[in-house]
Amino acid sequence: MNTIASQLPTREKILQAREVLRPLIHQTPLLSSSTFNKMLGAELFFKCENFQKGGAFKFRGASYAVKGLSREESARGVATHSSGNHAQALALAASMQGIRAHIVMPQSAPRIKVNAVLDYGGEVTFCMPTLQAREATLSEVIAKTAALEIHPYNDYRIITGQATCAAELHEQQPGLDYVIAPVGGGGLLSGTILSSRYFAASTKVIGAEPLMANDAWQSFQKKEFVPSVNPQTIADGLRTSLGSLTFPIIMEGVHDILTADEETIIQAMFLLWERMKIVVEPSGALPLAVMMENQELFRGKKVGLILSGGNADLNNLPWTASRSFSKH
Amino acid sequence: MNTIASQLPTREKILQAREVLRPLIHQTPLLSSSTFNKMLGAELFFKCENFQKGGAFKFRGASYAVKGLSREESARGVATHSSGNHAQALALAASMQGIRAHIVMPQSAPRIKVNAVLDYGGEVTFCMPTLQAREATLSEVIAKTAALEIHPYNDYRIITGQATCAAELHEQQPGLDYVIAPVGGGGLLSGTILSSRYFAASTKVIGAEPLMANDAWQSFQKKEFVPSVNPQTIADGLRTSLGSLTFPIIMEGVHDILTADEETIIQAMFLLWERMKIVVEPSGALPLAVMMENQELFRGKKVGLILSGGNADLNNLPWTASRSFSKH
Repeated sequence: MNTIASQLPTREKILQAREVLRPLIHQTPLLSSSTFNKMLGAELFFKCENFQKGGAFKFRGASYAVKGLSREESARGVATHSSGNHAQALALAASMQGIRAHIVMPQSAPRIKVNAVLDYGGEVTFCMPTLQAREATLSEVIAKTAALEIHPYNDYRIITGQATCAAELHEQQPGLDYVIAPVGGGGLLSGTILSSRYFAASTKVIGAEPLMANDAWQSFQKKEFVPSVNPQTIADGLRTSLGSLTFPIIMEGVHDILTADEETIIQAMFLLWERMKIVVEPSGALPLAVMMENQELFRGKKVGLILSGGNADLNNLPWTASRSFSKH
Repeated sequence: MNTIASQLPTREKILQAREVLRPLIHQTPLLSSSTFNKMLGAELFFKCENFQKGGAFKFRGASYAVKGLSREESARGVATHSSGNHAQALALAASMQGIRAHIVMPQSAPRIKVNAVLDYGGEVTFCMPTLQAREATLSEVIAKTAALEIHPYNDYRIITGQATCAAELHEQQPGLDYVIAPVGGGGLLSGTILSSRYFAASTKVIGAEPLMANDAWQSFQKKEFVPSVNPQTIADGLRTSLGSLTFPIIMEGVHDILTADEETIIQAMFLLWERMKIVVEPSGALPLAVMMENQELFRGKKVGLILSGGNADLNNLPWTASRSFSKH
């Protein structure tokens, strides 16, 4: 534990990362909505990472990791496996710095995310949609290319980059009672915990997870690592397990982990589109979804919600299939 | 002409309207996107009236008109006919000031717009989707209720309210070469012309109209009023004819009127959702659509585009029916 703690991204490291990233990323806006405030009896502040370059917060970590490579490392290129947004982010960050990016993606990844990686000049290798297949395929790619692996979340550079999101949020809106971040692999949640500890010590951090992929919730309840095994959730960005670096940060620093069922996730997503007129992907709707399922907990509170991404497949929307969430 | 000119909203009137509206409306953000700048070889600035209360610029004019009513007038309530966004805006503006709103709507209006009027406490009377039926039904409603008619566009109070949108735009981004506004009844375009004349004299104003509802374009070509007769366009906010007050302002002040076909309108709408992650209705996509069909004209220019509204029906999206606009 001491070894890990001594390597944790420091306050100074995160401040430095903000400077490094300033010319590369968008400082995303913080939106509010009287509709949602009234609906939930709380003050909500939405951190719009769906407007980030590449369409998600992932661009922060990827850019910070790529920016830190030596010339020799840059020449070798970077590689990763990702269900989507990290892939897109790494391909874009690499191409902006003239570096090759090799991306291993599960065949099941939304087409819009695969297309975006290709648009950004990434080189895609498909694999079966299991963690095992992804890791095996990545090993092959790295053996062939000598590229450096940039892990989607289990990497302190990535966690430091993601931490800049909550650092911005606390600067834009000091005095939050809670900040809620979605949790998949835990990179964003870990970064949110660290930045909240350093820059808003009285703000409680909550992880938001699909009930159908509640491995982080189980881990938190049992105080031991529980892996995510073939989870069936529409929130495709949140199907992964915690990592060896994110698990301890979350166990020590998260106030609570809350879950939402699939129906609520879709409804939250729909409401964000309909009322706020912004495009948010299922994973990004989790913070609002857990608020909707836990209204009493947040009543009268100031809550920051990280809308983690907006890469929804516009040709395949969850509510157009068989039902309508309109009120009338 | 002199009579009309002497009643035109003045610079001072528009400045005063900005003060009256400041506590009531959102000062909407101006967004930019390197994707669109690169795609079109120009600098684009998107005025996001889709984020306005009620989901469209219409709330500006409606709020300004309602705010100016005497106590006696307020007691009688307000009434209008509208294909959608003005209805919603008037219902919301009236309810915020404790006034009854009677709304005549064509049966063909998108359900989301009808629902919103009901949510805002408006009282809806349906009619056939023709201008004649709308006017006849409105007369009946007014005869019964003694409510005051607030016309959607042919009213100087409304034009003054809509003018505050471009006034904000020019303050947020001075030095624009062009500003493009959609044109239906001409309230927004008239207001944009007046504010540009007063606050950004070197900016040229362009009207954007569906090719399938090109009555304003025809009027501009022939220099005489041409009505809109049963137009078939997806841009449901732009099916109306110019009014007796908006026609002369537009004829005198517009630099040009450009059109776009239905395919381009849908594609522009899709791109705004996919790349900018914002929800824009078909009418709001017209400025981008005409830029896409007239790229040479705008190359290297600074262009303000008024995204007039975001009240799209999420259960009935134009691209999910039979085709995909993805690149791959």
